[in-house]
Amino acid sequence: MDKNIIGTKVIAQIGILVNDIEKTSQAYADFFGVECPKWSLTDTVDVAKTEYRGQPSEARAKLAFFHMGSLQLELIEPDHHPSTWREYLDEHGEGPHHIAFVIDGMQEKIMRMERNQMPLVQKGEYTGGRYAYMDTLQDLKVILELLENDK
Amino acid sequence: MDKNIIGTKVIAQIGILVNDIEKTSQAYADFFGVECPKWSLTDTVDVAKTEYRGQPSEARAKLAFFHMGSLQLELIEPDHHPSTWREYLDEHGEGPHHIAFVIDGMQEKIMRMERNQMPLVQKGEYTGGRYAYMDTLQDLKVILELLENDK
Repeated sequence: MDKNIIGTKVIAQIGILVNDIEKTSQAYADFFGVECPKWSLTDTVDVAKTEYRGQPSEARAKLAFFHMGSLQLELIEPDHHPSTWREYLDEHGEGPHHIAFVIDGMQEKIMRMERNQMPLVQKGEYTGGRYAYMDTLQDLKVILELLENDK
Repeated sequence: MDKNIIGTKVIAQIGILVNDIEKTSQAYADFFGVECPKWSLTDTVDVAKTEYRGQPSEARAKLAFFHMGSLQLELIEPDHHPSTWREYLDEHGEGPHHIAFVIDGMQEKIMRMERNQMPLVQKGEYTGGRYAYMDTLQDLKVILELLENDK
């Protein structure tokens, strides 16, 4: 394996798959004594350019974010279109899905990971940036998400 | 549910279950461009006072730690005695097991969580402190670990 593949080791986010984002958001809010965040819906495929395993996908998800020290905890309730979220939730049940890192140079980082047998699984755009889920299960035992924010 | 049950929302650690700690530690070290840490073995039951589901357990685990920004990433390779590690690994396969929080007042925090239907699953001692794994799967969709370090 190449060394220092993404140029950072700062975990920015933990993503957790849930079946009912309102119920689990409320449980987190109560447990940690914070206000319950409103969930937001990811953009439609024409805006998000969502691709799952190389094909456009209409998949969307409800997202809710909690600030947990220096990192975000993201709750994700996917719809039933094909996505890494839906696939992983169906296979593993509710629970942790990924750890995320903020990187520069998305295309180069994806190519570098793919050269190291860590294939791109899903990618998409959001307001102000883009994401890519990489299949690092074989080596790191957890899915990695790359986040690139516009400067 | 009571509010603000453990008095902190700073995630201190993510714990990941693995079958081969040396292989996965080397993969993490290469991927993130850091030195491969040596694993350590948890203490024997007479020292660690390990209890799993209310009974003493001889379970031990190999642990390796990576510093990932402000939090630790812990790799855990459990032995085959009864533990939350072995149970979760057998049921879910390799992958994330818990998120951990550093707290004060272990006994009071455990009692408070148990009053809120989040039972203690496993506890033990380590040099300089003690831990407790709490079953928060129903509400938070991930196991919580409480860590209390001696002052």
